[in-house]
Amino acid sequence: MSADSNVPSSAAAPAGSPAKSMDAIMSLCKRRGFVYQTSEIYGGINGFWDYGPLGTLLKRNLREAWVQDVVMNPCWGRNGPDGQPVEMVMVDTRIIQHPKVWKASGHVDGFNDPMVDCRETRGRYRYDHVQVFVPASGDAGDKPTFAYVGDQPSEAKQRKKAEKTFGQVKSVALSSLPQPWDRVIAPDAEKPGSLTEPRMFNLMFDTVPGAIRDEANKAYLRPETAQGIFVQAKNVWDTNRVRVPFGIAQTGPSFRNEVTPRNFTFRSREFEQMEIEFFVVPPEHLEGEEKTKSDPMDWYRFFRDWRMEWWKSIGLGGENLILREHEKDELAHYSQATSDIEYRFPFTSPGFGELEGIAYRGNFDLTQHQKHSGTKLEFRDTTRGDVLPNGSRRGVAYIPHVIEPSAGLDRGVLALLCEAYTIDPARPSPEFMKFHPRVAPIKAAVFPLVDKDGMPEVAAKLHAELKKKFGHLGMIETDAKQSIGKRYARMDEAGCPFCFTVDGDTLKDQTVTVRDRDTGAQQRIAMDKVAAFVGEKLGL
Amino acid sequence: MSADSNVPSSAAAPAGSPAKSMDAIMSLCKRRGFVYQTSEIYGGINGFWDYGPLGTLLKRNLREAWVQDVVMNPCWGRNGPDGQPVEMVMVDTRIIQHPKVWKASGHVDGFNDPMVDCRETRGRYRYDHVQVFVPASGDAGDKPTFAYVGDQPSEAKQRKKAEKTFGQVKSVALSSLPQPWDRVIAPDAEKPGSLTEPRMFNLMFDTVPGAIRDEANKAYLRPETAQGIFVQAKNVWDTNRVRVPFGIAQTGPSFRNEVTPRNFTFRSREFEQMEIEFFVVPPEHLEGEEKTKSDPMDWYRFFRDWRMEWWKSIGLGGENLILREHEKDELAHYSQATSDIEYRFPFTSPGFGELEGIAYRGNFDLTQHQKHSGTKLEFRDTTRGDVLPNGSRRGVAYIPHVIEPSAGLDRGVLALLCEAYTIDPARPSPEFMKFHPRVAPIKAAVFPLVDKDGMPEVAAKLHAELKKKFGHLGMIETDAKQSIGKRYARMDEAGCPFCFTVDGDTLKDQTVTVRDRDTGAQQRIAMDKVAAFVGEKLGL
Repeated sequence: MSADSNVPSSAAAPAGSPAKSMDAIMSLCKRRGFVYQTSEIYGGINGFWDYGPLGTLLKRNLREAWVQDVVMNPCWGRNGPDGQPVEMVMVDTRIIQHPKVWKASGHVDGFNDPMVDCRETRGRYRYDHVQVFVPASGDAGDKPTFAYVGDQPSEAKQRKKAEKTFGQVKSVALSSLPQPWDRVIAPDAEKPGSLTEPRMFNLMFDTVPGAIRDEANKAYLRPETAQGIFVQAKNVWDTNRVRVPFGIAQTGPSFRNEVTPRNFTFRSREFEQMEIEFFVVPPEHLEGEEKTKSDPMDWYRFFRDWRMEWWKSIGLGGENLILREHEKDELAHYSQATSDIEYRFPFTSPGFGELEGIAYRGNFDLTQHQKHSGTKLEFRDTTRGDVLPNGSRRGVAYIPHVIEPSAGLDRGVLALLCEAYTIDPARPSPEFMKFHPRVAPIKAAVFPLVDKDGMPEVAAKLHAELKKKFGHLGMIETDAKQSIGKRYARMDEAGCPFCFTVDGDTLKDQTVTVRDRDTGAQQRIAMDKVAAFVGEKLGL
Repeated sequence: MSADSNVPSSAAAPAGSPAKSMDAIMSLCKRRGFVYQTSEIYGGINGFWDYGPLGTLLKRNLREAWVQDVVMNPCWGRNGPDGQPVEMVMVDTRIIQHPKVWKASGHVDGFNDPMVDCRETRGRYRYDHVQVFVPASGDAGDKPTFAYVGDQPSEAKQRKKAEKTFGQVKSVALSSLPQPWDRVIAPDAEKPGSLTEPRMFNLMFDTVPGAIRDEANKAYLRPETAQGIFVQAKNVWDTNRVRVPFGIAQTGPSFRNEVTPRNFTFRSREFEQMEIEFFVVPPEHLEGEEKTKSDPMDWYRFFRDWRMEWWKSIGLGGENLILREHEKDELAHYSQATSDIEYRFPFTSPGFGELEGIAYRGNFDLTQHQKHSGTKLEFRDTTRGDVLPNGSRRGVAYIPHVIEPSAGLDRGVLALLCEAYTIDPARPSPEFMKFHPRVAPIKAAVFPLVDKDGMPEVAAKLHAELKKKFGHLGMIETDAKQSIGKRYARMDEAGCPFCFTVDGDTLKDQTVTVRDRDTGAQQRIAMDKVAAFVGEKLGL
C-alpha cells in the first residue's frame, strides 16, 4: 500500500519554466485520441477515463518498459547490493480476492478518507481537500466565508463571491477553522452552515460474488495489486526455483472509491499499478559482510535510486522529478524508510504529486497474512543455519522482509503527457509532444514530399522496411496528402520523434531527410541507414 | 457479447487420442507454478484463479501474440476481402462504465442465467447444469432420484447412491423431469423435494461508485470489453484518421457472476477477453463490385477463417479444434451469422468448449447506444454519395455494421495447457508440455553437461547471448546442478522447447547439442548458429 498522502508536497517553482495549462493538455489529449472521458456519450462517469488509440499505445509502451526492465532483464542486468544478479518473477492475481485478505492487510478497518457532506446540495467532499476563502486579514466578522475544492469549478466561483464580499482574500484549510462551520458557505450552496463534521469513508468498492446476496459474501475490488503478491508468495517459493533475495512483480487494475476524483487521470477511481514486492533476508539472519551490503536498508536504497533512474530513462527528469525521503513522523508504524518519486504536474505546481512510492515494510504484510490465514509464510533458506558434518547448512526458516516499489501506471502516463507537452509559438503548429522514443506511440513516419514523380513508391518501400523492423513496438506512419508542413505538424502533435521524407534528391542519391521533432532541424541520411538510425534511437 | 451457449457441443471422439486427465493437468499447473487458486491460503474463492510465474508468462505471450497479429500487423499483413490492408487501432476502456451502457446493451434486462435453489442446503445451481441419475429403465417408481452437477464432487457421490438404489443408472437433464421435483434429491441434500423452480439471476457484478450508496448510483463490472469499444467508437473516428472499414481492438478483464463456476479456469467469474469490433460499410451503401467482395458477410468469412488459422498458428489444431457455424435457430435476432471456434477440452470431450465467437452483429449495438445516449453514432463516409461538380463525393452518413471476433484469453491459455500436456511413459519423467515456441514461457535453456572442466564458463557465455537476444520474449534458463537427465525433465515439464548443452566436445569443436523437447532427439549444432536456430523457431 502506498502511503499517498494525497497532499502535493510543495517546493519552489523552477525559474524560467513555461507554465503548462492543464486545460490545453486535456484538450490535446481528447483531440488526438490520447484520453477520453469514460462513457462520454452518456455524460461520463466521475473518476473514470478511457484511452484512445494513441493513449493506449503510450500506456502499453510504459507498462512494457516496466515489465522489460523489472522482470525480463531486472534492473537493466545490474547486480544488487549483494553483488548478485537481481532475481524477479511475475504473477497475475485477481481483482477480487478472498475478503479476509483485506481484513489482514488493514484495508477493511483502516483504508478510509475523512469526508464532509453538504446538507443543502448533497455534495460530498474530501475533508482535507476543502479550502475556504477568508478575508486577507483573517477576520470575517459575522460575514460568511466561501468553501471550495481546488481545481474544481467551485474554486473560481467562490473566489469571485469572496472578493466581492471582502476585497482581498486568502485561502485556508477548512480544518483550520473551528467547528461547527456555521459561517462557511459550502461549494455550490447558497446558505452558510450546511457542512457536516468529517466522517470516515472506506475507499474500497464492494460487490457480491455468488448468487446469495448477504453481508457474509461481500467481497472487494482490490485497492492495490500488492496483496495478491503477498498472498501467493508462499506458492511462488514452493513451486519455483527462487531464493531470497528475489522479487515478485505484477501489473494490473486497482480500484479506489475516491470521494472527490480530480486532476484529470491523476486521482481516478479505476487505475493501473505496477508493483514489486522484493523479499530480502531479515537483518538478524545476515552473516559477516552481508551485514554491510545485503541489509534490507541496502536493498531499499538500491531500488529507490534505480527507480529514480528508470523514470529519468523514459523521459522524465530535470526539475520536474524529485525523490522525497519521508520524514520519520510520516512513516507507517511498520516502515523504517519510505520515499516517493514525485513529478511536478501542472495542477500541483509548484508542488509535486506522487508517481511511485518505495517502502521498506519489514515483514508486516506476510506476518499479518500468516496470522489471519493460519498458514506459515516462512521461507526456508538452506544457505543459512548451523554447519552440518557434511559441510552443508542446516537451513533456517524466516518471514522475509520486503522492499516495495509501487508505481502508478496512469500517473506515469499523465506525467509523460505533461512533460511531453510543449508550446513553441514560433512553429506553424505551436503544440507538440516531446515523448521519449521508447514510449512514443508513433515511432517514425515516412512521407513522400509530393504524391507523384516516383516518390510515393520509394516512400512505401522505406515505410514497409521500418514497419517490418519496428512495427511491433509502435505505429510507423505514412501519409501523402496535404502540405509537408501540415504532415509534420500532425506528427509533432502525436509526438512522433522522427519524420523521414523522400524528395527529389532521394531519387538521385538514395538519401532522405530526417526531421527532428524537438528542434525541427533536418539532415540528410542514406536511405539504407534509416533503420539503423531508428533502432539506435529506440535503444535497440 | 459472445453467445456462449455454455453447453459444450458434442461430436465423435477422435480415434487413438490418449485421454488426458484434468486432475493431472491441474496438478502439474499447481506444481510448476502455472495456475494457483486465488487467495489459496484463505481457502480460495470460488470461480477465481491466479497465475504463477510460468502461467503469467504463458498468458502474457498469448495476449501479446494477439495484439501483435491483430493490431500491430493486422491479420499478418494480409489484405482484407476488399483488397486493401486491414486497418486496426486499439483502445483501453474502463471496467466500470456508466450504468446506462448496460441498459442499452441489453445486459441489465437480458444477461441472466436460470438457477435453482436447494431449500435444505442453501446450495444454488445453474438450472441447465443440473443432471439427475435415474434408473436405466427410466422408471424410478416411488423411489427418489439423485441430482448432481457434472465435474463437481456431487457427481461421484450421487452416482454411488443412485447405483445402490437402482443398479444400472442413466443421467438425464433436470429440465426433462416434470415439476415440482418432489422426488429429486438435490446435490449434498438428504431429503427429496428441496429444489425450487428455476429463477433468473443477473450475471453482472454490481458496485457503487461515489460516496452515496443508493440504487440510483449502482454501477456494474463489465461483463465484456466489447461495449467499451462501441461507446467510444465515435470518439475514435472523430479523433483519428480511420475510415470504415476499420477495427477497434481491446484486451482486458471482464466479470461474470457465474452461478456455478467450474472446469478449472474455463468458467471463471473474473477472466480476460481479447475483442475486436470491426466496422464495415452497410450493404445498402456498397457500390458496383464492392457488393461481391466488401459485403459484411465477406468480412465475416474473412475474420472467421483467419481467426481459425491464428489459433492453429500458436499451437492448437488437429482434431481438437473445430469451427462451428451456428444454425439459424441459434442466432441472436440481430445476427445474420455467427460461428464459434471450439476446443476439445478434457472436461468437454468428446464435445468441445468455446474459445472464440465470431459474429456478424449488423448495426445492433451502435443503434442501441445511439438510441439510449441521444448521440448520433453515424460515420461520415466521404468516399460515397453523389458526385459533385468538382469530382469529389458528397459523402454519406451511416451506422456501420460490425463483425465481432471475441476471444477468451484465459480459455486460450487453458487450451494451450491442455493441448501441450503430454504423457510418455517411456520417458524418465513422463509428463511434458508441448508448447509452441511462440507462447512457451521459457524459450530456451543452456546447460553445462557437468559443473566443471570449463563447461560452466562456456555455457554462461551462450546463455548471456541468448538472454540478450531473446530474453525480452521469455525466460532463458541455465542450471548446472543435478544430472543432465533431471535438468531436461524439469525443462520438459515447463515446456521449454530447446535445451542446449555444453559438453566435452564443445571445448574442442565449438559445437553444442540441441535437444528437442518433443522427440528427445539430440543433434550437434555450431555454437555460433544457436541464436539463429532459436530465432527461426520463434518465427523472428
